[in-house]
Amino acid sequence: MPTIRLILQYDGSHYAGWQRQTSRSASGKDKRAFKTVQEELEKALSRVVGHKVHTESSGRTDSGVHAVAQPVHFLTSSRIPAEGVKNAVNKILPRDMAVLSAEQADCSFHARFCARSKIYQYVILSRCERSVFLQKKVWPVKYALSPALMRKAASVLVGRHDFSSFQSSDRKARKAVTEIKKIRIRVSRDKDILPFLRGVELLTIEIEATGFLRGMVRNIVGTLVEFGRGKRPVKEMKNILEKRNRQAADRCAPAEGLYLTEVFYD
Amino acid sequence: MPTIRLILQYDGSHYAGWQRQTSRSASGKDKRAFKTVQEELEKALSRVVGHKVHTESSGRTDSGVHAVAQPVHFLTSSRIPAEGVKNAVNKILPRDMAVLSAEQADCSFHARFCARSKIYQYVILSRCERSVFLQKKVWPVKYALSPALMRKAASVLVGRHDFSSFQSSDRKARKAVTEIKKIRIRVSRDKDILPFLRGVELLTIEIEATGFLRGMVRNIVGTLVEFGRGKRPVKEMKNILEKRNRQAADRCAPAEGLYLTEVFYD
Repeated sequence: MPTIRLILQYDGSHYAGWQRQTSRSASGKDKRAFKTVQEELEKALSRVVGHKVHTESSGRTDSGVHAVAQPVHFLTSSRIPAEGVKNAVNKILPRDMAVLSAEQADCSFHARFCARSKIYQYVILSRCERSVFLQKKVWPVKYALSPALMRKAASVLVGRHDFSSFQSSDRKARKAVTEIKKIRIRVSRDKDILPFLRGVELLTIEIEATGFLRGMVRNIVGTLVEFGRGKRPVKEMKNILEKRNRQAADRCAPAEGLYLTEVFYD
Repeated sequence: MPTIRLILQYDGSHYAGWQRQTSRSASGKDKRAFKTVQEELEKALSRVVGHKVHTESSGRTDSGVHAVAQPVHFLTSSRIPAEGVKNAVNKILPRDMAVLSAEQADCSFHARFCARSKIYQYVILSRCERSVFLQKKVWPVKYALSPALMRKAASVLVGRHDFSSFQSSDRKARKAVTEIKKIRIRVSRDKDILPFLRGVELLTIEIEATGFLRGMVRNIVGTLVEFGRGKRPVKEMKNILEKRNRQAADRCAPAEGLYLTEVFYD
């Protein structure tokens, strides 16, 4: 069966993350909160290709997390060309999801297992308590942040380490060792590109790693903000990392500022 | 009574424009669609100052139109300093509205009558049929547009003219003569400022005028797009203007790409 590889973009604000929910709470919780990206995509793809579709993505994203470009693959017995699948599925997907590209892939391709590294970006709206136009798209942080201090603290994390201190404490992964290949911290100010970005200061933290533990980016970002505010001296980052204990790091940054932006394959 | 002058920002996506609705349709229409910016602001201000507040803005905005900075004023018998009003009202306003600044104004100040000119910006997402992250914030236009052709056609409109051809035909203003002081058309491409702007091409049309007729910016934008696509030769713009007839111009661009960005006073 041919494999089709898609690049999927979604605004995660109204989704309970990527992964299909196997059992739904019977409580009074808002059903909408349980809508997942995978379910919506599979529903639309199944309609297009005419059989039940199972998708695999490069990895899970948490509730509220966005994707600028998430690779996904699926097997199909349909003869519809990849481009036709893309056009048809975009007509029926919710407006906050879109397939950016589709192509036939080698049958050995697997969106998750073949991934070599991934980039996440996290966007902070600094010196600001609220965001009218960027609601659920950035984390408004009311403090002034020093990108220089944040870069120094972040540089300690680059390389192969045990990142237990930045792993969400609710689930333990078997191994917490992974490699951060790069952390870039940039500030953009007062750009004219969109009317509502005038006078706005955005701080973007970009992390490339061979693998990410659960909550890793958000726990790193929440901790870097404390360094950026000058609440922790830079030398403390080494201690946090070495403690291999979630309690050593700071708060988890909210999901709304987080974007999966790129996945690299061999 | 002291006058307080505010600068208000709002995402207009979920509002039926600025102006309070005096009579509500009793039909089955979604009540939410009738929520107006003025009502929400007055409700919040009244709670803060402890008496019923009537606000005046620099002008109406249509349903779905946004404001980056809309001046508003109101009279109050309260002794709460302007800064205190701002902080208190921001705590209770909906998340898609915010007071950016507040100051005591001269009692002769009137947000509408004292305005000398205003700037609106209109944002087109070009070569794109959908927008996951900029939904209700831009107009996605699938065609490639020539900013050079659009600039040439737009230059015909600069100056004092009868703009009847660009006035919404549903309401006739007494006079359709106003002055466009400036039209700027810019293209921004592939900026790194927000993850979801990567690879995106935005075309912004900025119009400063001493006054705007109903629907004027959106009718001008809809018409300029036809020039940008090469569907009309530049010399036709003069004919459109001279006909003083809405039928001579093209379609009205949707509200979602329109932003009130600045109002100038003497």
